[in-house]
Amino acid sequence: MFRKLLTIEEAKNVIDENFKPTQLGDEDVALLEAYNRVLKENVVSTMDVPSFDRSTVDGYAVKAEETFYADENQSVALNISGMIFAGEQPKMVLDKGEAVEIVTGAPLPEGTDAVVMLEDAERVDNQLQVYTAVTPYMNVMKKGSDIKSGETILHAGKVLGASEIGALAALGLTKIRCIKPLIVAVLSIGNEIIEPGKLLTAGKIFDINAYSLSTAVIECGAKPIFFGIVPDDKETLRKTLIVALSSADIVITSGGVSVGPYDYTPQIVDSLGKPGVVISGVAVKPGKPTTVAFVQDKPVFSLPGNPTAALLVFYLLVRPVILRLCGRTPHDMQSIRAFAGVKLFSAKGRRTFVMVRLVLDVEKSRLVAEPVGEASGAITILTIADGFVEIPENQQHINKDEEVSVRLFRQV
Amino acid sequence: MFRKLLTIEEAKNVIDENFKPTQLGDEDVALLEAYNRVLKENVVSTMDVPSFDRSTVDGYAVKAEETFYADENQSVALNISGMIFAGEQPKMVLDKGEAVEIVTGAPLPEGTDAVVMLEDAERVDNQLQVYTAVTPYMNVMKKGSDIKSGETILHAGKVLGASEIGALAALGLTKIRCIKPLIVAVLSIGNEIIEPGKLLTAGKIFDINAYSLSTAVIECGAKPIFFGIVPDDKETLRKTLIVALSSADIVITSGGVSVGPYDYTPQIVDSLGKPGVVISGVAVKPGKPTTVAFVQDKPVFSLPGNPTAALLVFYLLVRPVILRLCGRTPHDMQSIRAFAGVKLFSAKGRRTFVMVRLVLDVEKSRLVAEPVGEASGAITILTIADGFVEIPENQQHINKDEEVSVRLFRQV
Repeated sequence: MFRKLLTIEEAKNVIDENFKPTQLGDEDVALLEAYNRVLKENVVSTMDVPSFDRSTVDGYAVKAEETFYADENQSVALNISGMIFAGEQPKMVLDKGEAVEIVTGAPLPEGTDAVVMLEDAERVDNQLQVYTAVTPYMNVMKKGSDIKSGETILHAGKVLGASEIGALAALGLTKIRCIKPLIVAVLSIGNEIIEPGKLLTAGKIFDINAYSLSTAVIECGAKPIFFGIVPDDKETLRKTLIVALSSADIVITSGGVSVGPYDYTPQIVDSLGKPGVVISGVAVKPGKPTTVAFVQDKPVFSLPGNPTAALLVFYLLVRPVILRLCGRTPHDMQSIRAFAGVKLFSAKGRRTFVMVRLVLDVEKSRLVAEPVGEASGAITILTIADGFVEIPENQQHINKDEEVSVRLFRQV
Repeated sequence: MFRKLLTIEEAKNVIDENFKPTQLGDEDVALLEAYNRVLKENVVSTMDVPSFDRSTVDGYAVKAEETFYADENQSVALNISGMIFAGEQPKMVLDKGEAVEIVTGAPLPEGTDAVVMLEDAERVDNQLQVYTAVTPYMNVMKKGSDIKSGETILHAGKVLGASEIGALAALGLTKIRCIKPLIVAVLSIGNEIIEPGKLLTAGKIFDINAYSLSTAVIECGAKPIFFGIVPDDKETLRKTLIVALSSADIVITSGGVSVGPYDYTPQIVDSLGKPGVVISGVAVKPGKPTTVAFVQDKPVFSLPGNPTAALLVFYLLVRPVILRLCGRTPHDMQSIRAFAGVKLFSAKGRRTFVMVRLVLDVEKSRLVAEPVGEASGAITILTIADGFVEIPENQQHINKDEEVSVRLFRQV
């Protein structure tokens, strides 16, 4: 088993080397439920959208060339031969010298190729005076100009938002083939941990990590399976991990990874399949006792019990893997420039992540990054923090007022 | 009825003047389903977290003052009087000169106030040599240091993410009182519009806007009620709007707002209650024929039928209102600096929004904003666009290579 502490970049490289994208299944999803889902296949249109030349204004459908000499001083006279409403199929064919009244969205009749806007013409009974020249297809949305038959309108892997779902509706689709959600097993390890809602007995604490990590999984667009709490018992843990691995695409545990006599999670994970544990400890603070294994191509992340550390390592190492397995592009966390509110210290030889909240310094009109407590494992730190400042391994501190980049947990 | 075109800022002000936050109901939500929900009430802790002094390391619980003179050269000798596991309630009380082995997460026994780390001591049978001094509460998470009994840990209005749900679990909660989702009625108006999945007959187009706008509503954390398509018929529209207003907190229609003979949406909305229509047209391109009304304090947005325009006006005017009604902070859309790929033209006297996609210019190592088609109403434009460039009312164009700010539809 690997025992050297890796830097965060080394850890990411080791994960990349062992990473094999899972082939997730697929399922049909109703269009109105497909928000934020990932498209399984390319979507190729079998129709033109619109399927006819469509007026984009209220006015008069004409043959453009008959208006070419019209201007404010010299109108062109046309006979109005009827009216076309939206949703109708016009049956008339226009002759020379004819125009037809048309509303927005209605199809142009045969013999016309442009629309003169209401305000550019004057009507007296069935006589129209056109005061402006229109070019062919002016004020017309041509057949197929939005989507052409045979055109690929969306590509496999696209994450569906408002405009994508609108485009699918434009093709008349009511459901769409999406990648099935990635299943992530989440479990907390420890005899001291008790399920929320139960009676808190002496020496126990309520489970935090299974809840915060499951929510972080949901935030990635994946689906957590909540395995709850596993006591510090080798055989129970081994059996639970086997079930978790068989029912999920990825497993996240927290707790049970330090050097205590009851911390045998890494050994058990390592025994479950090849290549087993590939990362044993990461040179970060907080989060050092992080173990990463691959068991039959499935990643198993064993995170520290400290809730701040567990969630931080989730964001740094686990989230990118989940997003890639889901077929989503792992975006970097958003950053913002700020200035250190106090001197920030690092842990010797370890990449240090200082949780900070952003405060506006009105006088200097700039954002100040204020640390929100030591990496003590308090979950409340993260509810207050807006993000974190990173201090490199080879740097001992960041001075007060020094410019820093704050990586944000959520948009400010 | 108001007939002057308003600028986008004037429109926002008129909305603000008429805006009355709805009192949304509340409901209990299971913790694991509470992601992205809005907290109804302050959460006050009724307990200390942790509820006991807790070791944060594996080591030996001691009385700190007995180690004050220990260092690498001069160890302090203590008798080991047992071991404490996590999840146990220690029954022993330590005397002078005594230490007890303790694992991470276990409670400190009476008579101790600090923990010496495993690597800072040496054990031979029950004799311990301590090689480092510890100060009181070193390597200890004190009772109540994360959360104190009586402390407000989260405030009403907080949007629940991973760390907030973790903090609620820390209190032993299994459900939490949240604001009920805002209900938004979405309907499309027009005889030419047909529901996806049905047979497309001549002169018809499939409904796009009800789908794209419903999805945009979901994206805001609100709940769309899909009213589908209403034909161009005054009485049907009036009746549908009355039902929509009685069942939803806000109503969004699209189509039927230009000057055509069949566009009576604004008149009907205006007749339904006071103050009625407050905005009739906004000086933007695309999106000019936008109508905003308030009917018995409920906002009714009548958006253009053009899918690009409808979604753009949704992002500019409707989204901030939905977010405020939901009790969420309306964040500005994220912006990014880029350079105009070609000369961009504006519509005379109207704020013009040019849909662009971002392309990396490797040679100049900068982002270029390329326009992705005219504001022609093509829904595909928005599936390609990364965001838009805004050209002010009094500006006629933006030159090629000029620096621009691109407001992003989604994170790039």
